[in-house]
Amino acid sequence: MQLIDGKAIAAQIKKEIAEEVTIIKANGGKTPHLVAVLVGHDGGSETYVSNKVRTCEEVGFKSTLIRYESDVTEEEILACVEKLNKDADVDGFIVQLPLPKHISEEKVIEAIDYRKDVDGFHPINVGRMSIGLPCFVSATPAGIVELLKRYNIPTQGKNCVVLGRSNIVGKPIAGLMMQKGYPGDATVTVCHSRTPNIKEICLEADIIIAAMGVPEFLKGDMVKEGVTVIDVGTTRVPSTETKSGFKLKGDVAFDEVVAKAGFITPVPGGVGPMTIISLMRNTLLAGKKEIYK
Amino acid sequence: MQLIDGKAIAAQIKKEIAEEVTIIKANGGKTPHLVAVLVGHDGGSETYVSNKVRTCEEVGFKSTLIRYESDVTEEEILACVEKLNKDADVDGFIVQLPLPKHISEEKVIEAIDYRKDVDGFHPINVGRMSIGLPCFVSATPAGIVELLKRYNIPTQGKNCVVLGRSNIVGKPIAGLMMQKGYPGDATVTVCHSRTPNIKEICLEADIIIAAMGVPEFLKGDMVKEGVTVIDVGTTRVPSTETKSGFKLKGDVAFDEVVAKAGFITPVPGGVGPMTIISLMRNTLLAGKKEIYK
Repeated sequence: MQLIDGKAIAAQIKKEIAEEVTIIKANGGKTPHLVAVLVGHDGGSETYVSNKVRTCEEVGFKSTLIRYESDVTEEEILACVEKLNKDADVDGFIVQLPLPKHISEEKVIEAIDYRKDVDGFHPINVGRMSIGLPCFVSATPAGIVELLKRYNIPTQGKNCVVLGRSNIVGKPIAGLMMQKGYPGDATVTVCHSRTPNIKEICLEADIIIAAMGVPEFLKGDMVKEGVTVIDVGTTRVPSTETKSGFKLKGDVAFDEVVAKAGFITPVPGGVGPMTIISLMRNTLLAGKKEIYK
Repeated sequence: MQLIDGKAIAAQIKKEIAEEVTIIKANGGKTPHLVAVLVGHDGGSETYVSNKVRTCEEVGFKSTLIRYESDVTEEEILACVEKLNKDADVDGFIVQLPLPKHISEEKVIEAIDYRKDVDGFHPINVGRMSIGLPCFVSATPAGIVELLKRYNIPTQGKNCVVLGRSNIVGKPIAGLMMQKGYPGDATVTVCHSRTPNIKEICLEADIIIAAMGVPEFLKGDMVKEGVTVIDVGTTRVPSTETKSGFKLKGDVAFDEVVAKAGFITPVPGGVGPMTIISLMRNTLLAGKKEIYK
């Protein structure tokens, strides 16, 4: 069994990005600039956004945090998006989800200029990814693909089972795993809450990507020997063991599955650190105008 | 075994659309207007486009055919697209594919205003479909879904195998079959040229959607009793039996598979007629501004 060390890979990529930024700056190029828009004071969102801002600093990006209280109107957010769309100094920006209920996430996402949509949530980026055109791939699927690559895990002709059909993980990672090339060329099965025989299906899988959001869903008796397991779950459960009062639980019963797995990601320290790094890479691509002019 | 009669369903929907157009006109509404752009004289394209124009007439739409010789420049086509984008009388338009090699299909598709993209090929429509937002769904997948609906074929929790991962059929129909709701909620597996064990996978399938473009690929010994088979294949093979000198072959060895199938589409007369009808429905939706304002 080999542990897929997302933290180490993320650190490695962070170093690669920082080196590239140093060169860009040395050559008088523009420092990539990421703006994060944060509405309200949700604990998870606060943590994610502060990690993103901190990572920007670590790789040498410029970053700006724009905060709104949770009673901000949809109009104000849309006006902010419009301003960021037009600001030539801003290479990419994200509006941290979830938003308060009185603001339409769909409207906000569609208002973002797709050329600055480093989260890859705009329908144009989603569509271009599906078709196989250059685009901003959303952070979690991009991070998963990168882990498979860095560990040289074979995917061609492999039986890949995706658990979950969410717009931000399940559907896009299914699309990426079936694309032509590497990592891709896998036979992909997408299971979800309506699938009656998930255990049977998982037992046939060479690669399982678990993204249902159900803690410890994937048990030891649901996988075959040598399987590669990517755990995307990050459910916060109360815990007396940690200072924060909670800990992250993956979708995989790690202690059971690890005995059979060929490769497996831990939670935390697997997919999580890759997600932020994928956002950094998208910001770098945006800064270099490599995907869109 | 029940034959899925695409021709009859298409005729029924044609009648429904024609009735709606009659009402729209009686109420002084705008007659839906579809424009088809045809480049060169490819036999298949000529047939498709003339069928589309004829069907427009039959349902009471206005239709316009714009023809270019195959030496037309990319700039001329893009200028034509731009003009159609701006023409308020045009509700929807299509540029018939394939285009000559010196013209980028990608550029042309992306130049089309997505609100008039009744073929559903623009990345915005592809992305919105993937996310589950209202959009123009491309004609073949939309036609397949409509057939399943009209025959009340259960899909929830069913094992649906899609053969082929093309941008215009395989990927979008996989996305539709896994969406929440009906027809959807299926467990979807996408197989393709890199899948080593297609036979095994097909033997487990409740629904098979064959879209590989390989004539008679799906044999009788690859399916289980009671399977629903949707044949998207339309390969033209030379034939001495027909006036045209060719006939259409599906991806399914019909004579073998029919003995085991619960439901099956013939070729021709299955998915084919539904494709044109889906384009008509998209044009009607465009005319009524039901999806985009």
